[in-house]
Amino acid sequence: MSSKNNVSIQATTQFLEVKGGARYAYRRFGSGPGLPLLLLQHFTGTLDNWDPALTDALAGGRELILFDNAGLGGSSGDVPTTVAGMAKHATAFLDGLGIGTCDVLGFSLGGMVAQQMVLERPRIFRRLILVGTAPRGGEDIMHLEKPSLAKHLQDPSNKGYSVLQKIFFTPTVTGQAAGTAFVERVMQRTKDLDRPSGPEVANAQMAAFREWERFTGKRFGDLREIHHPTLVVNGAHDEMISAINSYWLAENMPNALTLLYPDAGHGSLFQYHDSFARHATAFLSESSESAVY
Amino acid sequence: MSSKNNVSIQATTQFLEVKGGARYAYRRFGSGPGLPLLLLQHFTGTLDNWDPALTDALAGGRELILFDNAGLGGSSGDVPTTVAGMAKHATAFLDGLGIGTCDVLGFSLGGMVAQQMVLERPRIFRRLILVGTAPRGGEDIMHLEKPSLAKHLQDPSNKGYSVLQKIFFTPTVTGQAAGTAFVERVMQRTKDLDRPSGPEVANAQMAAFREWERFTGKRFGDLREIHHPTLVVNGAHDEMISAINSYWLAENMPNALTLLYPDAGHGSLFQYHDSFARHATAFLSESSESAVY
Repeated sequence: MSSKNNVSIQATTQFLEVKGGARYAYRRFGSGPGLPLLLLQHFTGTLDNWDPALTDALAGGRELILFDNAGLGGSSGDVPTTVAGMAKHATAFLDGLGIGTCDVLGFSLGGMVAQQMVLERPRIFRRLILVGTAPRGGEDIMHLEKPSLAKHLQDPSNKGYSVLQKIFFTPTVTGQAAGTAFVERVMQRTKDLDRPSGPEVANAQMAAFREWERFTGKRFGDLREIHHPTLVVNGAHDEMISAINSYWLAENMPNALTLLYPDAGHGSLFQYHDSFARHATAFLSESSESAVY
Repeated sequence: MSSKNNVSIQATTQFLEVKGGARYAYRRFGSGPGLPLLLLQHFTGTLDNWDPALTDALAGGRELILFDNAGLGGSSGDVPTTVAGMAKHATAFLDGLGIGTCDVLGFSLGGMVAQQMVLERPRIFRRLILVGTAPRGGEDIMHLEKPSLAKHLQDPSNKGYSVLQKIFFTPTVTGQAAGTAFVERVMQRTKDLDRPSGPEVANAQMAAFREWERFTGKRFGDLREIHHPTLVVNGAHDEMISAINSYWLAENMPNALTLLYPDAGHGSLFQYHDSFARHATAFLSESSESAVY
């Protein structure tokens, strides 16, 4: 399904220079009664990797802010090698924009950054949506060397987005069809494109994943400090960041409602963009202190 | 919140004699465009244990059929000591009513019975809602001797519904408040009550749980045969049937969308009856072959 009004594809890339931070690339579009929603992206993903069908749907009720962390896409600076380093940049960016509190959708690596940001400054977010991500101390996080992923990543016939189609979607007929449709949608944008990520981005972010797997003290203890209403979402068959991590978020976050999609992998939010947007909108539209909608 | 129209409380108990089966007690009420929804009850629960706030809400869109399995409440016969035995009775009951296909809400033990029924006769159900339940071969299923449950079950100050308040709801202030409200709602019915379950019911059903924990062949292999759209629901802190069992349902059922509620235990569907009814209604209203709504 193509997007209804193409606000995502037509959004121009903007830049914000933050003293002591970097020159950050971002896109800002949409309107409505909701708080702004900050979107934090996955491993090596840039502004161009958000599915316009999803962002168009979400932009109908609120302003969206797509953000390139330092060293990604059009943003200057070095890619941090820790999630905490990425959180510092994202916080500096929001401060630079003058946004005191917003909602956040953190996908994969972006979900880790969102957790770190809210632990450091609780009032920075009102509601969190954490998709395909893991808590600090999680397991089976982005081990690209494992056979189920390596076979796709090392296949020379997979190039560009066709890699994402293989590793973000289940190998079923329906999963791969959803992947094909996703690739067609993200490729609709042909102008004002972001700089694709190279190996230096991947290497730094992989270091951040390895650091995020380590923990001290009580495992998942940090999660008990996040009382914000949270919606946790995952595909039940996520090969990149196993869905058991979402189960641990459900078990340890005091205020998280968790949704697991069938026949879906890491890219569940793109595969089921209609359903995801409906659930996310229902969740974000609530003003209670509970995550339940 | 009290129920809006009290259809559940006013529903009279009916009886159906099935040759080769038993004389089954049931209540049938509600109307709307949906298929009838069969409700299969938890350990020792009878027709009187369904939360009227939940059943009133669901009855707005379809006919509900509350069912006492053999030996429970007003139903004759012996309580089977296996889930398969219970499934046989529930199937005989539907056959006796002349219902070829319906939807089902199986809670706890009732969710196991629903799985068994649909494995034996796939066309008996269109859509399944499995709440606080476990697949065959699951773990941490109704071990009443474990300290977190035993302390409430062996406390002589807990009587009748106050036991359920302790073991169906989290010990938090919000969890216990929800438990108090639940007890008040189920106690609204004062006439045409079902016979409460005694130790002979509990003993037979406990034997069925122990048998259900055993498996032969590939663990959770049966689940791959259930292609029906399924909504799996649990409280993230279910002490009676651990929520990890719901995760395994999510992982192994090919077409199950899974919802885990925060700050909730076994009785999540009663604690969040508004939300649960909303999600269940959205799920049941879909006519696609996918569980995703």
